[in-house]
Amino acid sequence: MNEPATAIEAAVAASPLHQLKDELDIVIPTIRNLDFLEMWRPFLQPYHLIIVQDGDPSKTIKVPNGFDYELYNRNDINRILGPKASCISFKDSACRCFGYMVSKKKYIFTIDDDCFVGKDPSGKAINALEQHIKNLLSPSTPFFFNTLYDPFAEGADFVRGYPFSLREGVSTAVSHGLWLNIPDYDAPTQLVKPLERNTRFVDAVLTIPKGTLFPMCGMNLAFDRQLIGPAMYFGLMGDGQPIGRYDDVWAGWCIKVICDHLGLGVKTGLPYIYHSKASNPFVNLRKEYKGIYWQEDIIPFFQQVVLPKDCTTVQKCYIELAKQVKEKLGKIDPYFDKLADAMVTWIQAWDGLNPTSASFSNGKIG
Amino acid sequence: MNEPATAIEAAVAASPLHQLKDELDIVIPTIRNLDFLEMWRPFLQPYHLIIVQDGDPSKTIKVPNGFDYELYNRNDINRILGPKASCISFKDSACRCFGYMVSKKKYIFTIDDDCFVGKDPSGKAINALEQHIKNLLSPSTPFFFNTLYDPFAEGADFVRGYPFSLREGVSTAVSHGLWLNIPDYDAPTQLVKPLERNTRFVDAVLTIPKGTLFPMCGMNLAFDRQLIGPAMYFGLMGDGQPIGRYDDVWAGWCIKVICDHLGLGVKTGLPYIYHSKASNPFVNLRKEYKGIYWQEDIIPFFQQVVLPKDCTTVQKCYIELAKQVKEKLGKIDPYFDKLADAMVTWIQAWDGLNPTSASFSNGKIG
Repeated sequence: MNEPATAIEAAVAASPLHQLKDELDIVIPTIRNLDFLEMWRPFLQPYHLIIVQDGDPSKTIKVPNGFDYELYNRNDINRILGPKASCISFKDSACRCFGYMVSKKKYIFTIDDDCFVGKDPSGKAINALEQHIKNLLSPSTPFFFNTLYDPFAEGADFVRGYPFSLREGVSTAVSHGLWLNIPDYDAPTQLVKPLERNTRFVDAVLTIPKGTLFPMCGMNLAFDRQLIGPAMYFGLMGDGQPIGRYDDVWAGWCIKVICDHLGLGVKTGLPYIYHSKASNPFVNLRKEYKGIYWQEDIIPFFQQVVLPKDCTTVQKCYIELAKQVKEKLGKIDPYFDKLADAMVTWIQAWDGLNPTSASFSNGKIG
Repeated sequence: MNEPATAIEAAVAASPLHQLKDELDIVIPTIRNLDFLEMWRPFLQPYHLIIVQDGDPSKTIKVPNGFDYELYNRNDINRILGPKASCISFKDSACRCFGYMVSKKKYIFTIDDDCFVGKDPSGKAINALEQHIKNLLSPSTPFFFNTLYDPFAEGADFVRGYPFSLREGVSTAVSHGLWLNIPDYDAPTQLVKPLERNTRFVDAVLTIPKGTLFPMCGMNLAFDRQLIGPAMYFGLMGDGQPIGRYDDVWAGWCIKVICDHLGLGVKTGLPYIYHSKASNPFVNLRKEYKGIYWQEDIIPFFQQVVLPKDCTTVQKCYIELAKQVKEKLGKIDPYFDKLADAMVTWIQAWDGLNPTSASFSNGKIG
């Protein structure tokens, strides 16, 4: 970082966005000591952390001094959810979604423990969380593309030819951030391009248009729990499952069709984090290979999903989606039957821990 | 420019893209001497210019020495097209589409005469045409969003979760470039933000997803004439018409639905030009005001247009679109009856000047 930590701390404390510290939890899945938080201290220390410990629950995870956190290991998850704990993945970062469920805050920011503070082209440390909050607090524009990108960014607006009736925008449910250094490539691309690094800083945030799917990454992601939380399920991955590394991608397909249905926005672009290390492409290939061919059927399924008009809450949408997954994707592999059941269990568990949210209507029907 | 012109010339001549000089025409609509070309000389001098002189045909337009050009004034247009000249607008930059029609090349780059060479953040002069050619020669990805933007850009690729079956992409028909300094705002936004300047250099090219419309600007635009030329009609604007400044926007709606139908790609983003002067917002308001309310009906129309499967050429698509414009938009104002007729006349004139293109099938049905 170019600035001394105290200067950053002062800037963070002075930011009007700082007021969200009581409305936002940071969810971190991990199997190791959280030394990476030292670098994030000036930005993240004011916030509450929910740490989801994956793997051996007898292991102790060290958290740097001064951070306010709660930590859940597998024993905690089993104790809290009972038989419904079956919907939470083990030995896969998909376990992070347990943190979304136990949070009581309006917003979630989730980050991987190999993600460091990035720098913008001027060398300034990027306050990723501040940018996510800006993204979530300003409207999205999913119905028409604005060629100058986010019309709500400073110095930008809607261009000539953008319909005025659509300039109010819609509520933003998800803010998907990007990665400098190690790009989020699949195993085949990692194998082919082992040395490729992302050095391109694209100074833009944009709304992913309605009807368009995208590959969501869970490494640097924020969302409005009240608007979309119950759909942010990272599926069955890792231990005992035939697939891994599709947790966030799966959630991305689900949240996008539900946001499109409910008239909510999904943004991607800024902020960048610095992704420090590539995972092993050979291990990744083993985890991914079924996903690589399954997705050729899954994506057409999601492109054609229609949710009925009476699905007016995220929960109703998600239960309906689970039904259609069972009907349409169950043919591909018995795994999807199991996944569809887990999707229903997830909603039951969510509603159990969040009793007042179950009947809320989250947004408009688009 | 930071580099001496000779260094830029050497770089341009050495570029493999330079070979397109026999396959690309530059179309410039103007009412004044083309002094602005001096700044573009190192980049554009190798190419042939088609200058469409608007307004008084008796006025002489001076073109800087050393440029290879043909120039058409209103008398030329009337002589070449006869009664079909009625489809070419007068006293509006929409007249530029006559240049698309008389060209015999595969590619068109069109630029306004108040657009100068922009600089990237390092201070280097931007070779806009080179970037447009890169955009047109590399595939588009309209069926799924790639979060690292153009996967064919240097140092980029498709990210994890991007389906492999869609990585081949489709042919790119249109490359829409952007503007530093004066943004392309409508009159109301100009009036509200007279001092706003675009200083944000977004280092990205992206495909506008299938099914999403955008506000196309004709200031800095390139396209593949063979793939989409007959749909690049800039409508009836200016003299004798109730509307102006919707020429490129109209063309953008038309080309997008036709590209979506034919499985062709539309890119936006890089390159930037430097847009030197804002037009008069009061004059613009007079030209635009009908468009501002008409577009509230026009956009839903274009969002719902379905072209039948037997529309396998751009011409067939465009004639069908003209029919639907007459049926559906004729109710808004008699102007759309006239416009629909002009769309048909335009295709007749295009086919008259381009006899071999009429029966080509341009692309796949998506």
